Amino acid sequence: ERVVEVGDLARLDPDRVRRKGVPEVIYAPGKSPADTARLATVMSEAAGFALVSRVDADHDEALAAAAAAAGAEYERFGSGRRLVARGASRPQPAPGGPAIGILAAGTSDVDVAEEARMVAETMGVTVTTAYDVGVSALHRLAEPLAAMLKDAVDALVVVAGMEGALPSVVGGLVSAPVIAVPTSVGYGAGGGGLAALLGMLQSCSPGITVVNIDNGIGAGASAGLIAVRAAAARARAADPRPV
Amino acid sequence: ERVVEVGDLARLDPDRVRRKGVPEVIYAPGKSPADTARLATVMSEAAGFALVSRVDADHDEALAAAAAAAGAEYERFGSGRRLVARGASRPQPAPGGPAIGILAAGTSDVDVAEEARMVAETMGVTVTTAYDVGVSALHRLAEPLAAMLKDAVDALVVVAGMEGALPSVVGGLVSAPVIAVPTSVGYGAGGGGLAALLGMLQSCSPGITVVNIDNGIGAGASAGLIAVRAAAARARAADPRPV
Amino acid sequence: ERVVEVGDLARLDPDRVRRKGVPEVIYAPGKSPADTARLATVMSEAAGFALVSRVDADHDEALAAAAAAAGAEYERFGSGRRLVARGASRPQPAPGGPAIGILAAGTSDVDVAEEARMVAETMGVTVTTAYDVGVSALHRLAEPLAAMLKDAVDALVVVAGMEGALPSVVGGLVSAPVIAVPTSVGYGAGGGGLAALLGMLQSCSPGITVVNIDNGIGAGASAGLIAVRAAAARARAADPRPV
Amino acid sequence: ERVVEVGDLARLDPDRVRRKGVPEVIYAPGKSPADTARLATVMSEAAGFALVSRVDADHDEALAAAAAAAGAEYERFGSGRRLVARGASRPQPAPGGPAIGILAAGTSDVDVAEEARMVAETMGVTVTTAYDVGVSALHRLAEPLAAMLKDAVDALVVVAGMEGALPSVVGGLVSAPVIAVPTSVGYGAGGGGLAALLGMLQSCSPGITVVNIDNGIGAGASAGLIAVRAAAARARAADPRPV
Amino acid sequence: ERVVEVGDLARLDPDRVRRKGVPEVIYAPGKSPADTARLATVMSEAAGFALVSRVDADHDEALAAAAAAAGAEYERFGSGRRLVARGASRPQPAPGGPAIGILAAGTSDVDVAEEARMVAETMGVTVTTAYDVGVSALHRLAEPLAAMLKDAVDALVVVAGMEGALPSVVGGLVSAPVIAVPTSVGYGAGGGGLAALLGMLQSCSPGITVVNIDNGIGAGASAGLIAVRAAAARARAADPRPV
Amino acid sequence: ERVVEVGDLARLDPDRVRRKGVPEVIYAPGKSPADTARLATVMSEAAGFALVSRVDADHDEALAAAAAAAGAEYERFGSGRRLVARGASRPQPAPGGPAIGILAAGTSDVDVAEEARMVAETMGVTVTTAYDVGVSALHRLAEPLAAMLKDAVDALVVVAGMEGALPSVVGGLVSAPVIAVPTSVGYGAGGGGLAALLGMLQSCSPGITVVNIDNGIGAGASAGLIAVRAAAARARAADPRPV
Amino acid sequence: ERVVEVGDLARLDPDRVRRKGVPEVIYAPGKSPADTARLATVMSEAAGFALVSRVDADHDEALAAAAAAAGAEYERFGSGRRLVARGASRPQPAPGGPAIGILAAGTSDVDVAEEARMVAETMGVTVTTAYDVGVSALHRLAEPLAAMLKDAVDALVVVAGMEGALPSVVGGLVSAPVIAVPTSVGYGAGGGGLAALLGMLQSCSPGITVVNIDNGIGAGASAGLIAVRAAAARARAADPRPV
Amino acid sequence: ERVVEVGDLARLDPDRVRRKGVPEVIYAPGKSPADTARLATVMSEAAGFALVSRVDADHDEALAAAAAAAGAEYERFGSGRRLVARGASRPQPAPGGPAIGILAAGTSDVDVAEEARMVAETMGVTVTTAYDVGVSALHRLAEPLAAMLKDAVDALVVVAGMEGALPSVVGGLVSAPVIAVPTSVGYGAGGGGLAALLGMLQSCSPGITVVNIDNGIGAGASAGLIAVRAAAARARAADPRPV
Repeated sequence: ERVVEVGDLARLDPDRVRRKGVPEVIYAPGKSPADTARLATVMSEAAGFALVSRVDADHDEALAAAAAAAGAEYERFGSGRRLVARGASRPQPAPGGPAIGILAAGTSDVDVAEEARMVAETMGVTVTTAYDVGVSALHRLAEPLAAMLKDAVDALVVVAGMEGALPSVVGGLVSAPVIAVPTSVGYGAGGGGLAALLGMLQSCSPGITVVNIDNGIGAGASAGLIAVRAAAARARAADPRPV
Repeated sequence: ERVVEVGDLARLDPDRVRRKGVPEVIYAPGKSPADTARLATVMSEAAGFALVSRVDADHDEALAAAAAAAGAEYERFGSGRRLVARGASRPQPAPGGPAIGILAAGTSDVDVAEEARMVAETMGVTVTTAYDVGVSALHRLAEPLAAMLKDAVDALVVVAGMEGALPSVVGGLVSAPVIAVPTSVGYGAGGGGLAALLGMLQSCSPGITVVNIDNGIGAGASAGLIAVRAAAARARAADPRPV
Repeated sequence: ERVVEVGDLARLDPDRVRRKGVPEVIYAPGKSPADTARLATVMSEAAGFALVSRVDADHDEALAAAAAAAGAEYERFGSGRRLVARGASRPQPAPGGPAIGILAAGTSDVDVAEEARMVAETMGVTVTTAYDVGVSALHRLAEPLAAMLKDAVDALVVVAGMEGALPSVVGGLVSAPVIAVPTSVGYGAGGGGLAALLGMLQSCSPGITVVNIDNGIGAGASAGLIAVRAAAARARAADPRPV
Repeated sequence: ERVVEVGDLARLDPDRVRRKGVPEVIYAPGKSPADTARLATVMSEAAGFALVSRVDADHDEALAAAAAAAGAEYERFGSGRRLVARGASRPQPAPGGPAIGILAAGTSDVDVAEEARMVAETMGVTVTTAYDVGVSALHRLAEPLAAMLKDAVDALVVVAGMEGALPSVVGGLVSAPVIAVPTSVGYGAGGGGLAALLGMLQSCSPGITVVNIDNGIGAGASAGLIAVRAAAARARAADPRPV
Repeated sequence: ERVVEVGDLARLDPDRVRRKGVPEVIYAPGKSPADTARLATVMSEAAGFALVSRVDADHDEALAAAAAAAGAEYERFGSGRRLVARGASRPQPAPGGPAIGILAAGTSDVDVAEEARMVAETMGVTVTTAYDVGVSALHRLAEPLAAMLKDAVDALVVVAGMEGALPSVVGGLVSAPVIAVPTSVGYGAGGGGLAALLGMLQSCSPGITVVNIDNGIGAGASAGLIAVRAAAARARAADPRPV
Repeated sequence: ERVVEVGDLARLDPDRVRRKGVPEVIYAPGKSPADTARLATVMSEAAGFALVSRVDADHDEALAAAAAAAGAEYERFGSGRRLVARGASRPQPAPGGPAIGILAAGTSDVDVAEEARMVAETMGVTVTTAYDVGVSALHRLAEPLAAMLKDAVDALVVVAGMEGALPSVVGGLVSAPVIAVPTSVGYGAGGGGLAALLGMLQSCSPGITVVNIDNGIGAGASAGLIAVRAAAARARAADPRPV
Repeated sequence: ERVVEVGDLARLDPDRVRRKGVPEVIYAPGKSPADTARLATVMSEAAGFALVSRVDADHDEALAAAAAAAGAEYERFGSGRRLVARGASRPQPAPGGPAIGILAAGTSDVDVAEEARMVAETMGVTVTTAYDVGVSALHRLAEPLAAMLKDAVDALVVVAGMEGALPSVVGGLVSAPVIAVPTSVGYGAGGGGLAALLGMLQSCSPGITVVNIDNGIGAGASAGLIAVRAAAARARAADPRPV
Repeated sequence: ERVVEVGDLARLDPDRVRRKGVPEVIYAPGKSPADTARLATVMSEAAGFALVSRVDADHDEALAAAAAAAGAEYERFGSGRRLVARGASRPQPAPGGPAIGILAAGTSDVDVAEEARMVAETMGVTVTTAYDVGVSALHRLAEPLAAMLKDAVDALVVVAGMEGALPSVVGGLVSAPVIAVPTSVGYGAGGGGLAALLGMLQSCSPGITVVNIDNGIGAGASAGLIAVRAAAARARAADPRPV
């Protein structure tokens, strides 16, 4: 297997998406904009694409310039970024293919939700989203949730900060597996995502699992894995030739 | 003002309900059954009634026996108890009088909710309750909540353990002031009421205030005060003779 | 109902004050000054006014400029700001109308107390304030508290940082419902508002409920709701024509 | 839908497994042995079976006696118990049906792992287990893990206390979704499951989600949901007649 | 210096009060009643007296029996106990001698306050007490506090649980040094003495220092040291013969 | 009594040192350099001096300039500053006057220790210091401690960060009252002063009380109060004319 | 390698001491006395000895009876127990062999210190101990520490509860590696070993490492490993024949 | 012994490496670049070398310039720096000399691992390193670990952030003493090194001790002490002439 050494910066693993089903993601915080951009361009050339999470404005500027210089396509997903190398192809959604839904409680939770979408779409998953559907205005939740269920999503990612109650409400309404993502939205006691995390761990609704605060990447990857395996089951059963 | 000294045990304040609007409540944990029973009978004789909170089976046995011996009526409100001295009268609910609603998320939260009811009813407040209406089964919430609002309750007490999401949902639906009570129902991370408390403090819904874990007494007292004042306003306006 | 979409920034709810009794408040931290100013001007045009909380110097500059450009009146309430659109009218205090009192323990607590005042006044509530009346100089508390009680306030908001003892002392003196607001004033162990929050949750005084650290907005909204309902009771009883 | 009221004890939901895919589980701690036994027998008669979690020796004795009296089969799964009513049928594992694997790090983690197995098997899932395969003796892990992967499990539940490192190691080796369960095994700093929970939330391995401490029930339910949906996909694809 | 070895149990230091000014105290929790009683009798014989802290009912029974058997006087100070050997003399309070005041907020705080009194009196300090003078009823505080100040106490010990606000109020009224003792009275968030401890550490009032939760012994010892030194200064200055 | 209102900034209390024995101290963090300087000059003109705590480089520059402009003397005490107005007199140390010793464990603890010295000296206390005498090099402690005891200090302030062990060691060696000050020196688990604070609260040595993290001001004030009262006792006894 | 299955109870590893240098220890808490005794006798028969940690009185009784029945020698090391099978031989201390010193601060820390001794001696290490040498009486430390250093111990184990300052003091005096063991002795804030653990992690003295609270077993094992390797180096160098 | 006073900055101890076996290290955070550089050059001139830990870019620039000006060699070890004075000699690794291995789980942990190497090499220890060998890719661990064991390292330092599982895995494979270093790599719940620290304290593997978060210096020093003593044993045994 290939290991791409980038000086002392990192040892990238461009084949991880093929081998493990989940792409490697470059975590921007604590890295300089220049280093981040260098890693992303090396990765996109080796793997066809590169994912970067939690970029700030300085990272964004450096990444955009590097992508332009390299002729790569540059896409924004909340605080995530994707570089697609010139000529590289992306997985196309297909009927019966893997599918997930992503819900976000508030507008401040969208950055994290979009990182989940970025990872899942890069895994070839069709993603349906509904944002700003928090529990303090439940009437906004019903319609998009019904649409997702009708589309037979394989899993749901539910993102919420503050009191983090949305996954409990959704978990009480659906039978699909729910992956709950607490976000660091909130202040004072229970702020920084603590109340949301604890509330999700305590949830009375069945079928809910949790990832760490702001870990949209991890939630998207887990939901993607579930969906990809379900879609593979559908495909294999429909065309049961031996592999 | 009277102070009733009960040996070294306590200095009871039988006139508190008249002076402050809120009765004194005997907190049972850490007290022996015998001491608890003695305090309750002394109090009921001085004030006409006595309230006891968080009794266990041993307290209950001692209290029931003491009430029987004293000829007092003995009532159970979840983990709360009320002794009404022989011949003492209780405030009667009246049309236009103070009114609150109490909601509890799960059956384990009922003990605390009932203590809130005990205090409020002792203050002369009409109390409507709806229990087992948690967020994992929202359809059970709509009807009782609508009934309470139609009855024009002056305030709502909302009791919930685990993730404590019910006050947020209710707060998004009503304009009455909501007093949220976290309960110590739950386990593991965020257990003992911590997740519920933090979630309620973080709630996105407007008009919610919070009391400490399992403090149904305090919630009932605050809701009662709000209701009593609103009812007084109604009465005074209807009959604006000078006081 | 109207929803005002402001690009990707937010979905504003200008009718919330009419429907729910509490106006929507724009939370400034984490938003750029430009975005904050844009949201505030859109909101003030749709609803007649806009409230912004926890602004810093950069937000303030952008908001003042935007208000001037829009011809809106610009008012400061501690760290809160209100824009009143040209020609919009504000609720006027009236005899018998809703009324609350706000107490703050120290000069550092005034920013939070003023946000409570901002919300309540925008709801049409008459607000009386007394600041710098902390427990280490109790003699300063007696007179303003007596004045508030004479004015028959419907509820009290009590704001305190450090050890947060003021609500306990006030709660021992009055029978009005008390909403306690811990502030993030303090340092070392128990700093950032933790000691104040925990002390308020533990308070021995009856009739106290609590909001999260620095949540003057929430306290003002809850106190406002209590007062508005009490005033409505007074008005309805005085003029009991059917609605 | 049926709701089975059992006095004041609970409102049971015997149809939940059909409607939501996950059976309701009776949580024993805090309930008396007699109440627990009564709930379990009522439930088993209404639904054909009853699941009880975290029973102690007293619960066990009462449950066994009640099962015997009712003619129900009584099975032990670690600290979980299942009553199967006389004549009730259980789902049978089938080739191509839902399948999960459960790993436990130490012998003290088996109680929790077995509760996960109890729930999943009750949902009709084939469960393969490997216990006592913790990271301090990695050579014991390789063989059972390979066997599970060869059997194409749809998801893995990995249970660990103390430092909780097993899910990270497993997550680095497989591409199936992993649900990590921290247990309350451990002492001193990080004891009671805290170190294990935090370690699992921090895991560097992709595709891991987490449930609360000792929540084998929740992990088994989520893994079961994933597996049931994957198996349904296989079945539907193999026999694509319209539903 | 003498060291009294009591088997494997302990190495007692009977001369500590002479050498260091503070007597050694036997901490009962975790010790069997028999061991506690044995230590206390050995100590009382070697030093003339023995102090024991935080005894429960079983310790008390064993200690009382041992004292009777040894012909020692047996005294109760809240949860503390003192044995005075037959014929041993105790320091007598004298005009101008060391003097402290001890205040306790609630009746539940008296056990800890009395342990402070036990230590101080054993050091020859005159102790004035006022109990049940908490901040929710400030009018009860004024008179006893004025009496203490008139008696020119050298230091004040102020004991409080729950929100622990009493030391702040007292510290705002007096110029004597105040030693604040949080007690483990309280429940829920901030319970077990945490809110009280943090509030005391955050106190805005000058001249307050703090000891650990329930450490009445330590507070009495420190206040005693301050008083003994002040009295020594008074004595030396009044009779300035060289030592 | 005078209250000096400084715009909206503060209400200063210049007579506090006379009335309460402890001067008011301006806490710089969170205040702008300009505001801090304005408060300090107003205070120094009203009271003859002004104390400022925890100044940073910007505060220092503004304070120095303001002092120069006002003709006041400007002194540095670690992170504390004192302005002495032109012509104002300071208390002079005198034989038999109040005296304390201040010990600091490491060079990083000196800033806090010096603030304690600033307050005490402003109260007229003679202060002896010994810095960099931590427990990892005990031989450096013996000599200065012996000197302090020979000088008959009335109290000791012991300042330490990291593990905060110095007060325990000192408390085991002396019979003077010890006030322990944890500092925010330290990192990782227990950093920010937590380990030091908890260790001091747990100290096995008798006669130790504690203030909050970095609260040198409070420790200096309490030690000063003890010393001032002891010195007053000496003076009064030596010259027992009635006051 | 042998694995000894004891029913469902455990899978014992009798060869661990030979293979890894550290014997397996049976952790008694949470196990019934009967199970503990059964495990210990099976282990002692397979390995020649068995070690049990943290036994209570009930465990002790069962273990003693089982040892007697099996003809094994039964030894007590604080809260640890060792069974030596009839005829089994123990490693004998030898000149130049591995050697460690164990220090304990208070008499309450001895139980944990003795468990460290039990493990190390079972590894063939000569152990010198000095107990009750805490920092509040430093003069008792000097002599035994000097003796240990003269005996050229290979490592020191230092056990302390409360503020846990002893390892810092020792670490400042010696150049041998120090393994610090916090114990759960202590109460209130920082109780249960937290203050001691954090203080040891923060220690300013070089060459200190830490184990978890009450983990005397782990400390003894690590110190034993260091000593055994040093002794092996001595032996190999003295007799450098190839292995 | 020499103490080098550097103004008010510090009192350096250049002979510590000779006396205690461990060099003094200058801790850069909180010090200005200029002060740090001054301390380092004074130290390197007095002791022949100077070690600085946790430098940032500004410190680095000042240190490099100061080293150049002083003619000293300037070396980088992760976030550590070493100045070697012109003409000073360093210990040379030798066969049979002290030897340790250092493992780091991720690339973000290398800075801390290199500080451990810096200290150990300065003590004359031969250091073998293997970085980026975390548990999510166990196959990368086997080879370097085997090489270290073949080289007979005297101790292992294992550095890991996030879930911190590497020391447990390594501890299960080797019999050398393992010193575990948690790093502050990680985010959300358990971030900042907390999960890693707790996991290491809970480790099931024998022979592991722990230092504080990011304390590579302490780990390197302790491992170095162990190795130096073992090497001394080897040398003394091989050449047993009396010292």
